[in-house]
Amino acid sequence: MDSSITPHLACARSRQRRIADDYAPPYPAWSARIDPAVERVVMANYGVQWRNPADALRALAHARDLHATLDATSGARHVDLARYVDEAGYDTLVVQPYWTDPSAFRRWETRDEVAALRSAETGLGHFREILTPTVDRLETLYSTEDEMEGIGRALATRSPPVQEHAYWGSARDRFPIAQTDALAPGGQLGFTVASSGHVTVGGHANIAIIRSGQDWGPTSGEERRLYLEEIEPVLRAGMDFLRDRGGECGCYVNRYMRIVDLDGTPQEKSFGWSYWRSLADMEGWSEGHPTHLAIFGTFMKTVQALNFDLKLRLWHEVYAVTPEQQYYDYRNCHAETGFLKQLPR
Amino acid sequence: MDSSITPHLACARSRQRRIADDYAPPYPAWSARIDPAVERVVMANYGVQWRNPADALRALAHARDLHATLDATSGARHVDLARYVDEAGYDTLVVQPYWTDPSAFRRWETRDEVAALRSAETGLGHFREILTPTVDRLETLYSTEDEMEGIGRALATRSPPVQEHAYWGSARDRFPIAQTDALAPGGQLGFTVASSGHVTVGGHANIAIIRSGQDWGPTSGEERRLYLEEIEPVLRAGMDFLRDRGGECGCYVNRYMRIVDLDGTPQEKSFGWSYWRSLADMEGWSEGHPTHLAIFGTFMKTVQALNFDLKLRLWHEVYAVTPEQQYYDYRNCHAETGFLKQLPR
Repeated sequence: MDSSITPHLACARSRQRRIADDYAPPYPAWSARIDPAVERVVMANYGVQWRNPADALRALAHARDLHATLDATSGARHVDLARYVDEAGYDTLVVQPYWTDPSAFRRWETRDEVAALRSAETGLGHFREILTPTVDRLETLYSTEDEMEGIGRALATRSPPVQEHAYWGSARDRFPIAQTDALAPGGQLGFTVASSGHVTVGGHANIAIIRSGQDWGPTSGEERRLYLEEIEPVLRAGMDFLRDRGGECGCYVNRYMRIVDLDGTPQEKSFGWSYWRSLADMEGWSEGHPTHLAIFGTFMKTVQALNFDLKLRLWHEVYAVTPEQQYYDYRNCHAETGFLKQLPR
Repeated sequence: MDSSITPHLACARSRQRRIADDYAPPYPAWSARIDPAVERVVMANYGVQWRNPADALRALAHARDLHATLDATSGARHVDLARYVDEAGYDTLVVQPYWTDPSAFRRWETRDEVAALRSAETGLGHFREILTPTVDRLETLYSTEDEMEGIGRALATRSPPVQEHAYWGSARDRFPIAQTDALAPGGQLGFTVASSGHVTVGGHANIAIIRSGQDWGPTSGEERRLYLEEIEPVLRAGMDFLRDRGGECGCYVNRYMRIVDLDGTPQEKSFGWSYWRSLADMEGWSEGHPTHLAIFGTFMKTVQALNFDLKLRLWHEVYAVTPEQQYYDYRNCHAETGFLKQLPR
């Protein structure tokens, strides 16, 4: 059976997988394959933040202006636009482009019109959260065979059904680097605060990030009802817990986000976006915390009720980055925004 | 923080634990400590089986006769008596003595009165299922600090709170032998059928066995109600699944048993007793099967409702044995009894 690890990234393991070689998962799932020519990807978040509903259209216009620069010449391979309300009650739109070529990203970000948008004095809050992992530091999983999402759209190629899923710890086993590395956290967050209030945050070693998505567009009938009435409220409660109390289990930031059209209309797609002290902390919440076990248990109950025949599309991408592979800055944002919440005070 | 592995059994790991060294479990649990003088334990099951309710007293008398031989001179360190109804509707009583000295076990079993009981023609079914693991092939966990159960009573000494628990895969990490061994299954079950119908079964490498207990005697009020009305029915459904369909996930045999007094009166203690193709199969059901996730999820929900203040006592012991460390025989038992269910026909 095929491994989730793209063949050219496989190496002799010094760290074992949790499964035996003859393990067969009870249902199929797929990962994105990585072209050998791709050494590093870029996953960027450009956030615009506001509190006063009167600012919503201006924020959307800003996001659209940025989105418009992500044309074919930008080299971006995929772009999402998503919205959430954060723990302080601020509304936020985030433009999320993906590149498979860091130099294309750098050329795009230094274009005049992009630089102008990034430094524009709008009165709104602005942040950048940018991940540039080497390809051994990411893993993906998709529950359906039809199409991928997020980084999978940027990477474009899908694996055969993979062996490393449907067991706790499988995310780690899908990481190429985890063949030989424990991905232990190291060092500290670093904060550089300018007199303007602009804050730059340096991440520590092996911060783990997950984008975990749901697409209920294809569902109907009883499955749709079960998703919206049974699963989603439990998912939301778990997302709220991580947002408000995630620090208890190593979660720095959590956002439960909704994909929106360029006019702001919500699509039937959502995702959690979170930063963790380490992959082990993420595993700990996922495997052991009542709020996640409730999500998982409710989902499993539903899967049984529907006799394992689901149209619901689930997927995720996970990154574990070195200090050099992450960059965060916040301009005119409130003090609980993203990593600012971790600023000692 | 202390390891579940008794210090003299610790060695340099070639197989990593799932946790980082600084992992701290969210609540305490304890393991039995193993005296360096103990190299091997014996966990025996002497079953007496009947179908006609009129035979119940005779079966109990047989079990009591055997139990009476397990006196101080037998060397048995602990004895339980338990009852269950199996998948074919047969009633069964099992005497379960533990030794920490295999030679004492052999001396006891070859005593004249014991040999006579073992070969008695009662018209009832009789089976022996005997495990003689070396101490590197067992692990234990207890949720409360008051007293241990099963093999813990035989081993007598308790550890400080241990690090390896409250995460999936922790059972494996508590096995001394798993420091360096994957405990992969190997070989086949072997059956020797005598013309008398007496069947002897040879186990294959790394069959895994769990005794997983519940003691609701100390509970009261809301906790007792939640255990009996919420948790126990879900536990029973999971036990029924393993009994009837366990083969789908590598479970050879499952019995949901009730501890009884010597007069057959049920105590407020139960346990599951099951044989598995491998520890990995046991992990797979535990971590992934809806029936176990339902048990786990219901328990976690209850734990939250009770604000983590539980009187319920939970415990287990797990073994993973070599072919030489297991012995099973069946005399006058129905064809679905224990390992007989696996006999090719």
